[in-house]
Amino acid sequence: MGEVNIRNIRLFIAYDGTNYLGWQIQPKGPTIQGVLETLLTKLLGHKVRLKVAGRTDTGVHALCQVAHFLTLSHKPLEVIFKALNAMVSPDICIWKVEEVDFKFHSQRDTLKKTYVYYVYNYPVRNPLVRLYSHWVPEKLDINAMKACLPLLIGEKDFASFRKSGTDIKTTVRTIYSASLKRVTGMKHMLAFEIAGKGFMRYMVRNIVGLLIEVGKGKLGIEDVQRIIESKDRKVAPPPAPPQGLVLKKIEYPPIKVIDSYPKFKIEL
Amino acid sequence: MGEVNIRNIRLFIAYDGTNYLGWQIQPKGPTIQGVLETLLTKLLGHKVRLKVAGRTDTGVHALCQVAHFLTLSHKPLEVIFKALNAMVSPDICIWKVEEVDFKFHSQRDTLKKTYVYYVYNYPVRNPLVRLYSHWVPEKLDINAMKACLPLLIGEKDFASFRKSGTDIKTTVRTIYSASLKRVTGMKHMLAFEIAGKGFMRYMVRNIVGLLIEVGKGKLGIEDVQRIIESKDRKVAPPPAPPQGLVLKKIEYPPIKVIDSYPKFKIEL
Repeated sequence: MGEVNIRNIRLFIAYDGTNYLGWQIQPKGPTIQGVLETLLTKLLGHKVRLKVAGRTDTGVHALCQVAHFLTLSHKPLEVIFKALNAMVSPDICIWKVEEVDFKFHSQRDTLKKTYVYYVYNYPVRNPLVRLYSHWVPEKLDINAMKACLPLLIGEKDFASFRKSGTDIKTTVRTIYSASLKRVTGMKHMLAFEIAGKGFMRYMVRNIVGLLIEVGKGKLGIEDVQRIIESKDRKVAPPPAPPQGLVLKKIEYPPIKVIDSYPKFKIEL
Repeated sequence: MGEVNIRNIRLFIAYDGTNYLGWQIQPKGPTIQGVLETLLTKLLGHKVRLKVAGRTDTGVHALCQVAHFLTLSHKPLEVIFKALNAMVSPDICIWKVEEVDFKFHSQRDTLKKTYVYYVYNYPVRNPLVRLYSHWVPEKLDINAMKACLPLLIGEKDFASFRKSGTDIKTTVRTIYSASLKRVTGMKHMLAFEIAGKGFMRYMVRNIVGLLIEVGKGKLGIEDVQRIIESKDRKVAPPPAPPQGLVLKKIEYPPIKVIDSYPKFKIEL
């Protein structure tokens, strides 16, 4: 009784970003962080501060977002899981709660992040996919787009794909893989998947914006090369819109998991 | 000039039913018919009344809804198409406008209607599919469900699947086919597809509600047989919720199409 035992709790979260101003808390409107911190603070009886793996922007979705917080509460993981899911609105789901090694840090320890960007490529709009894809009516040359993907791989200075007007320490990032595929079972849907050590804000959407211009035949592979080498945001096309983007996966080195709820392996 | 020429205009419509009280106009809130009749009336300068192939209920979606109306307007199809799509909200799309044979009737002439019902079958909720599928956390026995499908085929009295409290002339309907499949490319998603000459209100959702009980192991194939033969709505389980249902296709006998916009073949 009364033993002081600080627990490090890791949350796995999926959300539909349509109605949120992104992950990070801010005064202008609802955010995922804001909603979850309010509920956790209420539930655990002390101010909870979440650290997160990927701060998604307004309108961006997540299937596997990872966040963690410290608590002195003894509440069982099952209670935290059930209470959170009972209180959030249906566009958010906390699909696993874990107690992990005290040293685990959701942001700092990330090995690999995977994002998917969905493009609905058909002359006619489809209202049933509008919230989770970007509609491009012009026929895209998928092979031309694919030919550019090798230019993205490796440790490079991706300054051309940073968010306009942002000031960051370094624009060097490492991209491990990039692919473009038709989604089987979903008519006219393309999925661009990219994995890397980390991404700058707007980086994936800026890359997709550029690839779409290639697909439309407005730019060639040599333009993509030139734009990357210029390291100048101003020469690249505007970003693709947020609703096509999904944070799909966050990978970490093996860590000690003390307990988890639910126990079974989950794959969304 | 001034020639009186009544045109019969056929519309192909897709919509996300989430924010509508179904197709049919009603005073309580927005409906697809209400929205489209208001816009067409404004556009064509006379009261427009739409007849429709399938009156979908509150929250039900459509990829291929078909409606028609008569007009004296000479407005080109391209103008009607572009004006309608510019005025509707993004959850509705009119994807083809045709001038057809004067005798065509969208409701009366239907040969075959195809509906799909999506079930997300996984212990964990997925916020990204919640608006277009029904979440069933219990593991479903798909083979047991499939074994019941032959019982649905043919011309039968489907009184057990009518909407409670409705009074209709006959509860005999003809079902041509029914299938249940895992959706390739969409994890944990099942699609129940059913085609028939026509359906009663709630019929597809009542069938799905029954099949889910079979999948959960609460009912067997002999119970399904008994429930169908009872012709009694009260012995069947409640309907599955509306958001999983999509009106996928309406088929007609070949008819004379005088003109269409756009001209190319469309497959959503």
